Amino acid sequence: MTALTLYYAPGTCAQAVRIALEEAQAPYTAVRMDFASQQQRSPEYLAINPKGRVPALVTEHGVLTETPALLMYVAQRFPQARLAPLDDPFALARMQELHSFLASTVHVAHAHRPRASRWADEPEAQAAMQRKVPANMTECFALIERHYLGDKPWVLGEQYTVADGYLFTMAGWLKSDSVDIAQFPRVAAHYARMAQRPAVQRALA
Amino acid sequence: MTALTLYYAPGTCAQAVRIALEEAQAPYTAVRMDFASQQQRSPEYLAINPKGRVPALVTEHGVLTETPALLMYVAQRFPQARLAPLDDPFALARMQELHSFLASTVHVAHAHRPRASRWADEPEAQAAMQRKVPANMTECFALIERHYLGDKPWVLGEQYTVADGYLFTMAGWLKSDSVDIAQFPRVAAHYARMAQRPAVQRALA
Ligand SMILES: N[C@@H](CCC(=O)N[C@@H](CS)C(=O)NCC(=O)O)C(=O)O
Ligand SMILES: N[C@@H](CCC(=O)N[C@@H](CS)C(=O)NCC(=O)O)C(=O)O
Repeated sequence: MTALTLYYAPGTCAQAVRIALEEAQAPYTAVRMDFASQQQRSPEYLAINPKGRVPALVTEHGVLTETPALLMYVAQRFPQARLAPLDDPFALARMQELHSFLASTVHVAHAHRPRASRWADEPEAQAAMQRKVPANMTECFALIERHYLGDKPWVLGEQYTVADGYLFTMAGWLKSDSVDIAQFPRVAAHYARMAQRPAVQRALA
Repeated sequence: MTALTLYYAPGTCAQAVRIALEEAQAPYTAVRMDFASQQQRSPEYLAINPKGRVPALVTEHGVLTETPALLMYVAQRFPQARLAPLDDPFALARMQELHSFLASTVHVAHAHRPRASRWADEPEAQAAMQRKVPANMTECFALIERHYLGDKPWVLGEQYTVADGYLFTMAGWLKSDSVDIAQFPRVAAHYARMAQRPAVQRALA
């Protein structure tokens, strides 16, 4: 099997894919993009991912982007790692439902702080968006606490899946968004549980 | 097989799920939410979908939300309709990559016009966001034109998939966002091709 190449930056959503690759014990190379020098917008990187974002995963068939798609790809490509309930349409849809909520609502709520300039040019408007980030992130995680985490250890219950690494990655953004994770006891316990997994420690190293 | 119930509102992203259900010839009931009276935020509907959004799909195992998750669920539940390349991880990831881009970037770019209040409280900030919507939607569809549509009829080439109904639904928003679809010949041709499918006509009826 050809090795995969993951383009990532530390602390970004790409971390979720790195965790999945480590959990799968997949052969891969991680290439770090330097956001400080805007390397993600260099012509070389735009040739790989025209969106100028991470993650991007280079496979023998071509480049793939978008965290939810990559998480499912890793789970499907390394089925022996059992990282998704591939044959149970309802359980798989629950997993992908959380992926979509994280990508389209939670990630977007957060991005209005560091990336407000995507959605308005005026500095006052950007500041107004940034002021609302803590409230929006609080609302998102209150819903995750109530609706996606129960008394079981993982998002889908007893089975660990790629969704757990994705949730962990976004929960890691709360502090920088001035939201106290302790308000959400299940999210906090899930975060602590994740931090102990060897694959997570390797992905963050 | 139990009938499914889809909660939707006309012209919203839920239309993509309706198209998928029609293509699959699935047994389902469509329940229309009245956005004018904010029915999506009524206690009755919040008990179904605590996010207060459409689509939501009621199944015999429970409620599912999030367009990308529902599209994949319909494809997996009705495999004979061949609405997704379920057994080809790379092709499936390409399909899901577009789903994620549509949900997390294109839908969000559009939503800053009708739903700017999600991300800032001040009217001036909301107006600033609204002014940027045409430019952001243009950028999104320029990328779709170049990167996701080729000379083949459908997003994945010769095989029609649920992604086609999702792209069609969002292309239908361009006019209200003051973006001329004619700038994107492949998107426009795809849109016209979609509009001729009987399942699409039933979904829109
Ligand atoms: N929808 C994409 C979003 C990717 C994304 O926004 N990545 C951020 C890091 S978390 C990025 O690369 N930002 C760089 C930039 O905006 O310049 C996904 O889920 O993968
Ligand atoms: N990420 C969700 C977004 C759902 C969503 O925002 N739906 C809109 C219609 S396109 C809605 O219900 N808006 C109602 C509201 O904001 O009150 C998905 O892809 O299904």
